[in-house]
Amino acid sequence: MATIFTKIANGEIPSYKLAEDERYYAFLDISPLQKGHALVIPKREVDYLFDLDDKELSGLMLFAKRVAKAIEKSVPCKRIGLAVIGLEVPHAHVHLVPLQGDHDLDFSRPKLSFSPEEMADCAATIRTNL
Amino acid sequence: MATIFTKIANGEIPSYKLAEDERYYAFLDISPLQKGHALVIPKREVDYLFDLDDKELSGLMLFAKRVAKAIEKSVPCKRIGLAVIGLEVPHAHVHLVPLQGDHDLDFSRPKLSFSPEEMADCAATIRTNL
Repeated sequence: MATIFTKIANGEIPSYKLAEDERYYAFLDISPLQKGHALVIPKREVDYLFDLDDKELSGLMLFAKRVAKAIEKSVPCKRIGLAVIGLEVPHAHVHLVPLQGDHDLDFSRPKLSFSPEEMADCAATIRTNL
Repeated sequence: MATIFTKIANGEIPSYKLAEDERYYAFLDISPLQKGHALVIPKREVDYLFDLDDKELSGLMLFAKRVAKAIEKSVPCKRIGLAVIGLEVPHAHVHLVPLQGDHDLDFSRPKLSFSPEEMADCAATIRTNL
């Protein structure tokens, strides 16, 4: 059975898409820690980041770098933090989170909520900056 | 002036070293979130992860993967989480943290403390598993 992230990459579940190529897909996290918080996934369903082969892992990180640079230009932040936890969805995913301070990457903090219009605007701005 | 991580990689400041090659260095975090929590750095002083060039970023992540696989074999955990925050030291560093649950990567949690003997044993076990 396809993971929720595969369904998102396939367009079966809608997402605020940021970028896509043959192997990777990036979209806004709908329960963000900060505005512009994105998820980057390999299209191939691999549960654990470090089970990606070397080429896929490198490719994922370079794709994430490209998305991170666009997020940086789109939302006020000092830099983009990166986290991979991944125990809840069995499909490797990289969190990219705009940081103002060290605590902005704490996943125990309450998630933010933005209107669909705000999310769409944010995604459009990031896509423009890619 | 050299960063604290450059001094560690150069051996001017002691560390519980896990692995090293010409470009990267891995060692135990002395204020760990979990036993086996490691830091992986490029030897070249670059403040921000996403300012590493593509070759360096890929190389850092593949080096981190190798260290993560060794940590996994050395301490009880479900997998190794990854985080890059990096606002406190101006030298890019990847945290590798053994996870039992999602909250094990929360940097707001109290840090653990192990004796020098425990740290040295932990590093030796990880080196054996590389």
